Amino acid sequence: MAEVWEGWERRDRPPTLFRRFTFERYAQTRDFLDALAAAGEACGLHPQNINFGTTYVNVTLEAADNSALSGAHEAFARQIAALALAQGGTGA
Amino acid sequence: MAEVWEGWERRDRPPTLFRRFTFERYAQTRDFLDALAAAGEACGLHPQNINFGTTYVNVTLEAADNSALSGAHEAFARQIAALALAQGGTGA
Repeated sequence: MAEVWEGWERRDRPPTLFRRFTFERYAQTRDFLDALAAAGEACGLHPQNINFGTTYVNVTLEAADNSALSGAHEAFARQIAALALAQGGTGA
Repeated sequence: MAEVWEGWERRDRPPTLFRRFTFERYAQTRDFLDALAAAGEACGLHPQNINFGTTYVNVTLEAADNSALSGAHEAFARQIAALALAQGGTGA
C-alpha cells in the first residue's frame, strides 16, 4: 500500500517516493529536467529512476543503499516539486 | 515479435524502436542525456519515452502520429547510438 506524503506516493518495500508531473509543452518538460539534474548534482542525490516523454516526467526517489528515506530525500522531493511548479507543471 | 535493426528492437504495433544504453558513471549518463536532448531539438524529433537511472538510459522512438517510422527516425536512432558510444556507453 502506498500512502500520500505531500503529493508523493510513499511506498515501503523498498522505501520510495514517486510522483508524476505533467507539463503543457516540451520546453517546460526540458527545463524541469535540466533543473532537476542541477538540483541533484548540488545535493548529491539522484532519483533512482526518471521516466519522461514530451509532456510528463515520472520521478522515483529511493535511498541508495536500500535503507530508509532520510530527511535529505524529503527535502529533495520538496525541491523537485517546487521546480516543477516553477516550470508551470502540475504534480498529479 | 521484435526484430533487431542496427542494435535496436523494432516493433510493429505501434511502430517503435527501442534500445537500452548503459554507462559506467552518472556523469556519462548525464552527458548522453544532454546530447540526446540537443540532437532531438536540432532535428525536431523527440523520443516517445526515455527511462533512465544513474547508469542506464532506455530510449523508445515512435512516429508522432502512429504512422510508420521514417528514414528520419532511423537517422535519429543512428545518431543516438553514436552519441551513446561517444560517452563510453554500451548499447545492449
